[in-house]
This record gives sequence, structure tokens and C-alpha cells, in this order.
Amino acid sequence: MIFDAPAAARLLEALHRLPGIGRRSAERMALHLLSAPDAEAYELSDALRDARSRVVRCGTCGMLTEPDPCAICSDNRRDHGLVCVVEHPSGVIAIEKGGSYRGVYHVLHGALNPLEGVGPDQITVGKLLTRTDDDAITEVILATNATAEGEATAMYLMRQLQARGVTVSRIAHGVPMGGGLEYADDVTLAHALDGRTRL
Amino acid sequence: MIFDAPAAARLLEALHRLPGIGRRSAERMALHLLSAPDAEAYELSDALRDARSRVVRCGTCGMLTEPDPCAICSDNRRDHGLVCVVEHPSGVIAIEKGGSYRGVYHVLHGALNPLEGVGPDQITVGKLLTRTDDDAITEVILATNATAEGEATAMYLMRQLQARGVTVSRIAHGVPMGGGLEYADDVTLAHALDGRTRL
Repeated sequence: MIFDAPAAARLLEALHRLPGIGRRSAERMALHLLSAPDAEAYELSDALRDARSRVVRCGTCGMLTEPDPCAICSDNRRDHGLVCVVEHPSGVIAIEKGGSYRGVYHVLHGALNPLEGVGPDQITVGKLLTRTDDDAITEVILATNATAEGEATAMYLMRQLQARGVTVSRIAHGVPMGGGLEYADDVTLAHALDGRTRL
Repeated sequence: MIFDAPAAARLLEALHRLPGIGRRSAERMALHLLSAPDAEAYELSDALRDARSRVVRCGTCGMLTEPDPCAICSDNRRDHGLVCVVEHPSGVIAIEKGGSYRGVYHVLHGALNPLEGVGPDQITVGKLLTRTDDDAITEVILATNATAEGEATAMYLMRQLQARGVTVSRIAHGVPMGGGLEYADDVTLAHALDGRTRL
């Protein structure tokens, strides 16, 4: 069958490695790319090559960007004293979609995970600490994920930043807006109760 | 934001054009490809280019393949007098996964769709007719999709093939195995009743 052939199998593997793409989706995408007109198939290959050569990490915050510094870091209407720390570029996109945050960001490009050999030097922790030393930072908001690695990273950064006299906060975790209590899992509910605010 | 930048936007569009990939999945894939190590990102680009240059349509049946003729057409343990006609290469893969079909195939690479300008000359109808003229074909099974276009294509091929004296059949449509009657839609149920077989 077609995916036993080496070149097609290689394409299938490369697509299967993408996040959220199972074997069936990868097969469907590969068949489409192999059947499509030349222009459409080569467009993906060329667009990827072109994007990789043009898109860089912002020298200030680490966000993926074409101009360096990025549009957020070079926007002087934003509060550059307020830094929101996220694990991945997708975190910046998610918060920006909300449209209410007016500070700037710091992208770690990962989370601490000693079992997989990811320590502070493998992510952009050093750059964040230098940034808080140099700039007039009034508060750092830790918005790492609510996973074991994200929580560990937040704890580590909290200690490092507080030792430097920086005000540190963590985003709230609780029942999502519009969500009924019956749909929230136990850990989220426990967090929601612990993190209750006095009215 | 990153997807306002031209190169990243182009990559996002190219991914969004893939079948079954919505905007959010395309964003996730694009961010992954932009953040991944060089080797991983370029691997997809290179694998696609390589596969496009090596994979061809089988000269006999039209299936995507690296050796030409394909493994199925060159397998002399299969019944070359029995030809199953499908719209796309994915149809061949689906039937082969079942493992019980022992004939060969013919891939149309589309279905008749006059509104979108797809007539018999835009798909491989001519090749199928030539094939039935030349070879010792005992039966053609029409396995085009159960859509308006697939049905129209099956009707058209039935007439053309019967005029040439070829035995033609259509795959059965009905309630899927393991599926309860309450989950089947009205059209499927009507088909299942019309196509009942005497026991």
C-alpha cells in the first residue's frame, strides 16, 4: 500500500508528529498533499521554509515574531512594568484574544521538567531574571499551565523573583466562567474553594 | 500578533487548507512548526517535497504509488478481472484495511460535478473504459461515495459500461454493522429496506 513506500511513509510520519494529529488525520492530510495540484502541495513546503527563515524569537520577551522587538514589546501604550510569564507562544495568543491585558509578556519556551532534563537553563528563566533586574518591573504574573510542570515552574520562579524583591502573582484557577459546578473536576473545585475571594 | 506577520500568515493559510484542519488546529500546528528545532520543521518541508517527486499515479489503476505499476496491480494472486471503482486513493486504503477484497481497483480522482466543471474528461473515466475494452474484465464494482456526486457518477458509469457489455454492480448501502436502527438516518434506513436480500 502507498504508506509502505518510503517517501510516503516519511511524509506520514512528519505529519503524525504535529500536535493533535492522530494517524488517521495524518493519513488524510498526506493523501491530500500527494493528490493535490503541484502548486498547492509545494506551497506548504515553501511557506514552512519561508516562515522558518523569517520568524524569530523577540529579543525582549521571546515571543515568535517577524519584526524584532515584537509588536507588543514595541507598543509604548502598554504597561512595560507588568510582565505575564507563559510557557509557550500559544499562551500569549490566548491572552491577547481576550483583549483586556495591557502589560507585556515573557515566553519561557517550556516548563521545568527534571525527568526529561529540562532545568532553568533549558528555558528562558535567566533572561526573565535579567529582565527584572534591569527594567522597572512592578509585577510579574505567573501564567504557566495548571499542570505538575507548570506549577513547579511557577513555584521556582516565585522564589527566585521574590528573592530579588519583585512582586509576584499567579493567575487564578477555578471553575470556568459559564461552567456549572457539576462539570468541574475535584482538583479544580478544591482550587476554586481555596482561592475564594471575600466579597 | 505573530499571525499578522506575512510569512507566519502564509504558513497558517497553507495548513488551514488541509482537509479536516480548522483555524485553531492550523494555529497550533503553525506555532509548533515555528517553535520546533530546525531539524523537525525542515523535515516536514523536505519530506513533502521528496514524496511529491517520488509518488506517482499507477499507470494501470491510478492509485498513488512509488513503484509503477502499484503493488496491487502487479500482484498476480489477485483477480484482475474484478475491478472496484473508487473516487479517491483513500477509498482503496479503506477497502484494503478490510482485507477481504481480492480484486483490483480503479481510482477516478474525483466524481462528476457539472456545477464545479468536473465532467468525465476531468476524472479518469476514459481510462476505465479503455481498460474494460482491453482487459478480460468480468465485473466492475462501483464504490463511489453515497453522495449526490458519487451516485451520479455511478449511474453514468453504469450506463457506459453496460453499453459495452460489462457486468456492473454497486456496493450495498444500509445500516452499518454494529449500528442500531435508532442511530441510522432516514435515507440510510430507506436504502436498507429497498436493498433487503431474501434469506
